[in-house]
Amino acid sequence: MIIAWIGTGVMGRPMALHLAKAGHQVTVYNRTTAKTAGMAPDVKIETDIPSCVKTADVVFSMVGYPEDVEAVYRTVMKHAKPGAILVDMTTSSPSLAVKLYQEARTKGFDMLDAPVTGGDLGAINRTLSIMVGGDKDVFEKVLPLLEKLGARINHMGGPGSGQHTKLANQTAIAGAVAGVAEALMYASAKQLDPYRVISVLTGGSAHSWQAEINGPKMIDKDYRPGFYVKHYLKDLKLALAEKEDLSLPVLEQVTRAYELLAKHGYADMGTQAIIEYYLRKML
Amino acid sequence: MIIAWIGTGVMGRPMALHLAKAGHQVTVYNRTTAKTAGMAPDVKIETDIPSCVKTADVVFSMVGYPEDVEAVYRTVMKHAKPGAILVDMTTSSPSLAVKLYQEARTKGFDMLDAPVTGGDLGAINRTLSIMVGGDKDVFEKVLPLLEKLGARINHMGGPGSGQHTKLANQTAIAGAVAGVAEALMYASAKQLDPYRVISVLTGGSAHSWQAEINGPKMIDKDYRPGFYVKHYLKDLKLALAEKEDLSLPVLEQVTRAYELLAKHGYADMGTQAIIEYYLRKML
Repeated sequence: MIIAWIGTGVMGRPMALHLAKAGHQVTVYNRTTAKTAGMAPDVKIETDIPSCVKTADVVFSMVGYPEDVEAVYRTVMKHAKPGAILVDMTTSSPSLAVKLYQEARTKGFDMLDAPVTGGDLGAINRTLSIMVGGDKDVFEKVLPLLEKLGARINHMGGPGSGQHTKLANQTAIAGAVAGVAEALMYASAKQLDPYRVISVLTGGSAHSWQAEINGPKMIDKDYRPGFYVKHYLKDLKLALAEKEDLSLPVLEQVTRAYELLAKHGYADMGTQAIIEYYLRKML
Repeated sequence: MIIAWIGTGVMGRPMALHLAKAGHQVTVYNRTTAKTAGMAPDVKIETDIPSCVKTADVVFSMVGYPEDVEAVYRTVMKHAKPGAILVDMTTSSPSLAVKLYQEARTKGFDMLDAPVTGGDLGAINRTLSIMVGGDKDVFEKVLPLLEKLGARINHMGGPGSGQHTKLANQTAIAGAVAGVAEALMYASAKQLDPYRVISVLTGGSAHSWQAEINGPKMIDKDYRPGFYVKHYLKDLKLALAEKEDLSLPVLEQVTRAYELLAKHGYADMGTQAIIEYYLRKML
């Protein structure tokens, strides 16, 4: 299978290499060319999108923001081979995913939205969870490729459903991570040993991945990014933009917190930095 | 060891029986006498607190609300044996715990606050997590008894620290359970298969006990109580009452949700009924 891969950041780079290792002919493109350094000869490197995609059976993308996705596919759809399958793995706008799907169909392509969870470690260790929206038969065609990238792959429904699922996931995280931060603020005000509190929390019905992994980082003020504040904020804003008339007050509250964190210089830190929203009384 | 046990509800009853099974002489009292039915001959049943506590080395209580705790110990401290250790396992007010501790010390008793997590199943299966506040040497004296009741027992600090830890735990749950409810509301609005969404959530950084256990119950509208709305609301209000000048917006938001749920007839249902706060637009 001839594969084009657009976007070789911390996620895209190991993913493209997994496909190459699986025996596929992979050509990569990245806007910042430095990020493709060292990938050859496992993959072929191109410095423009048309050259990258022109012979590909499947075009994958893993870029930054919805506007990047839109710009990439404006070019891809001009230069890709008729009948190519386009798979956007960026966490992006569900509405944009639907729009691009329709445009792709009009131009003789198939298209899937397939955002992931699991972070850079998931990408490296092929343990990603991949949530796919689009036509079932197209999903089945690319499933063998997705299985080289992740451990759990779910077809969630028509176009946009992958993105919607990812946004539901990020919404659940919003409550969990804020709950842990507020519990630690309370514990600290009451002079409790915070590590012992995390150990109690993770032993029962307060247990969460956020308490277990991000709780200790909050205590240690270790804000090195597992998942960037700026990227999470993008996701939260997408969820708010898509929620229509639903009232989701916790999502709204936590989005405000991350907006303030980004404004106060925490954009490039990990999401556990939400504790600073409380410590620095940004409220 | 001669033990008095006050409060034989869904939690207290199996706990008292565990101590009796461990070979201790246990005398129980419950305000509603029907709830002690069938406990004899494993334990001795008394119908007033003075008779229940008068010879006990250790007095345990597991009752409903802080006002019940206060009333119980007003009587207990008049009739217990000098030097008895008093252990309140109710989730109650940390300030009240400190006040009762001081009163107990003045009157020649020792006292611990020792609330639990793990629910009725934890009480039955002896898998409770027990969070203890009070003097370390007193904690060590009753530790062999607590080990008959739970799997994880932590001394958290001075009087009130057990209660504070429990309230921190409940604060973390507030975010997690609301996050799951909001994620499911979003998923439902986008016509996603909610069971598949829960499966995605529980496979990554959105994972929580609340998503795993209460998520499917929310989908099924199965509001049978694991943990009652009315009891959780009590805990949330205690946390707000104790937080002083801390700003904990998610805790505040979720407390409002449970207040409205209680007002709308959900007080005797399980905490997963929070989904009705969104479905019925109580906001």
